[in-house]
Amino acid sequence: MLGATALEFTLTHEDAGSSARCGVLNLPHGAVETPVFMPVGTQGTVKAATPRDLADTGATMILANTYHLALRPGADIIEDAGGLHRFMGWSGPILTDSGGFQVFSLASLNKITADGVSFRSHIDGEMIHLSPERSIEIQNALGADVIMAFDECAPHTASRKAVEDSVERTARWAERSLAAHGRDDQALFGIVQGGLHDDLRRRAASQITALDFPGYAVGGVSVGETPEEMRRVVATVNPLLPRDRPRYVMGVGRPSDIVDMVGAGVDLFDCVLPTRHARNASLFTRDGLLSMRNKAYARDFVPVEADCGCYTCRNFTRAYLRHLYTREEMLAGILGTLHNLTFFQRLLEVLRRAIRKGRFQEFREGFVGGDSFEILSRF
Amino acid sequence: MLGATALEFTLTHEDAGSSARCGVLNLPHGAVETPVFMPVGTQGTVKAATPRDLADTGATMILANTYHLALRPGADIIEDAGGLHRFMGWSGPILTDSGGFQVFSLASLNKITADGVSFRSHIDGEMIHLSPERSIEIQNALGADVIMAFDECAPHTASRKAVEDSVERTARWAERSLAAHGRDDQALFGIVQGGLHDDLRRRAASQITALDFPGYAVGGVSVGETPEEMRRVVATVNPLLPRDRPRYVMGVGRPSDIVDMVGAGVDLFDCVLPTRHARNASLFTRDGLLSMRNKAYARDFVPVEADCGCYTCRNFTRAYLRHLYTREEMLAGILGTLHNLTFFQRLLEVLRRAIRKGRFQEFREGFVGGDSFEILSRF
Repeated sequence: MLGATALEFTLTHEDAGSSARCGVLNLPHGAVETPVFMPVGTQGTVKAATPRDLADTGATMILANTYHLALRPGADIIEDAGGLHRFMGWSGPILTDSGGFQVFSLASLNKITADGVSFRSHIDGEMIHLSPERSIEIQNALGADVIMAFDECAPHTASRKAVEDSVERTARWAERSLAAHGRDDQALFGIVQGGLHDDLRRRAASQITALDFPGYAVGGVSVGETPEEMRRVVATVNPLLPRDRPRYVMGVGRPSDIVDMVGAGVDLFDCVLPTRHARNASLFTRDGLLSMRNKAYARDFVPVEADCGCYTCRNFTRAYLRHLYTREEMLAGILGTLHNLTFFQRLLEVLRRAIRKGRFQEFREGFVGGDSFEILSRF
Repeated sequence: MLGATALEFTLTHEDAGSSARCGVLNLPHGAVETPVFMPVGTQGTVKAATPRDLADTGATMILANTYHLALRPGADIIEDAGGLHRFMGWSGPILTDSGGFQVFSLASLNKITADGVSFRSHIDGEMIHLSPERSIEIQNALGADVIMAFDECAPHTASRKAVEDSVERTARWAERSLAAHGRDDQALFGIVQGGLHDDLRRRAASQITALDFPGYAVGGVSVGETPEEMRRVVATVNPLLPRDRPRYVMGVGRPSDIVDMVGAGVDLFDCVLPTRHARNASLFTRDGLLSMRNKAYARDFVPVEADCGCYTCRNFTRAYLRHLYTREEMLAGILGTLHNLTFFQRLLEVLRRAIRKGRFQEFREGFVGGDSFEILSRF
């Protein structure tokens, strides 16, 4: 299977009381411990973070968006630059999505045919066509370690019939994505869609796993579902995915969602939450989100989190952060991003440790009851 | 003299054919090689740069603005934080200005009396009074290594009579600044004003040097003067300043101005030019300013400057920078700032080397003829 050699996945620990597991994902640009959280570098940059600062947060693997990069600067420019790793100065593993999600959520005038999707660019209104073949061609040009099959992500409000059609289309597009994939140093993942319909999810899982991808994603669970719906979908799909392949839930999520999904056997996560929140002055701590513009921090001369260890917490106080945020200084977003990304990396590190020590259930129970993550300090 | 022990200035080289000189300025937070360029950290942050990135550019000493910090977050908060160094996480030397310049250029409804200036805050319109005593009290609270006497910077359009009045007022305020200064770990500099009137500049120099400050600034030369006027003023004042004390020309400047002023015996510079230009996509190179949004760079897969050695040039291409600037990504301003600040530090480093090697004239002549600094590569 083309691309299978680009990926080696070794499970190192499996939890007795849940589906949680630890593993090592070996990819062309490095090894990644799973479960892993990937910061999002939509336009070829994790917003506000230099690659060296990003590595400093503990990040090992990042995500970039095919749709955005294909529009600007264009896949040809990135290919001529020597690929996305060199273009953006990130030497670790990268995953690119297929562009499908953005086509259905950001672009306008989508026209879906059997061949693919025509849409207007959200930047300049240019009419663009994306198909499985074109998505894979672009992702081959970008050169990420993991690339995704082109899928249709039906909207939350779609009828059952529309979701069923999208599942069937996604299955055919998955076959065409596989056929179009032309590099054996990139691992191509299949995507299971099916909305909130358990039977369609099962059908999609059966269709997609039959194609024998080296890894699988559960798509469409971060789009408008409640946490309960998200959990049900993942609980339905995951047992149908091969145990020895990495599983990725796209666009998730909140810390509590990540803990739940890890318990359901998910290995890869990505979300804009830590970076977006940082730019909006919301910083993650074990005591919940701090709103750093709050006047209460004007004279709070302690770090955002005392034992965090990130660059921001080692060097600056809440009072300084509040000053930067209220004065709208760029350094606010920079320091906030470093802290929030470090928080997510620490969460995943603690999760991996808990699984390895057979204490995952204890950890998960400590999370129940809201957004206080005091449990983190006990692991 | 209170504060004199905070500063030790040793001249190490003096140019035979000009007034250029090299020295070492020992301050409570470290030693600084002169001539030195200080990046501007107006609100307690050099915009877009973390302190570790800032140190990485070669910066040894920075400037912060008393006016801005006194308004937000307030000197009391910075004092309670343990001073400006700890507040902003910069462990090297800092210089604060007196606030006078901003009071006359940013604030509205200035009312100048013998005691000081009343003005409305440019942030919320609050009525504020600043006097020599209050300026020094604030600067003592901030705790910079070098602080400035409170001065009146008459506008470029002021009548001779108005400039003469401001010179007299500035002399009295300098005495009061000295008397108010309460910390012996901060060096207080006097400021010579006098607009474009040579005789008033001479009178001011005589008045201010009579007060025996450990260092002197030439004020009001970056405000609307032509380069020729700027040079004439500095050429008039500098010979009247004691040779063994550091000289600072505030708010200067362009690279060509810096080279000229170094030739006139100036030791300290500060300017927002490299950081502001960086945020506006103008990057300094030996071939002049590059406008990084220019389409010409879309496929230019070389660093901003091949042999620059800054973090940006070591890791990224012009094509990537252009992508970041056109997409208005925060990383654009971050990487541009690192490059431009490094350019200025390299310029000063080359200047110091040229002086030490007796090649300053040769270097200065190489600069004549515009904004191409190709001469830099020959030193």
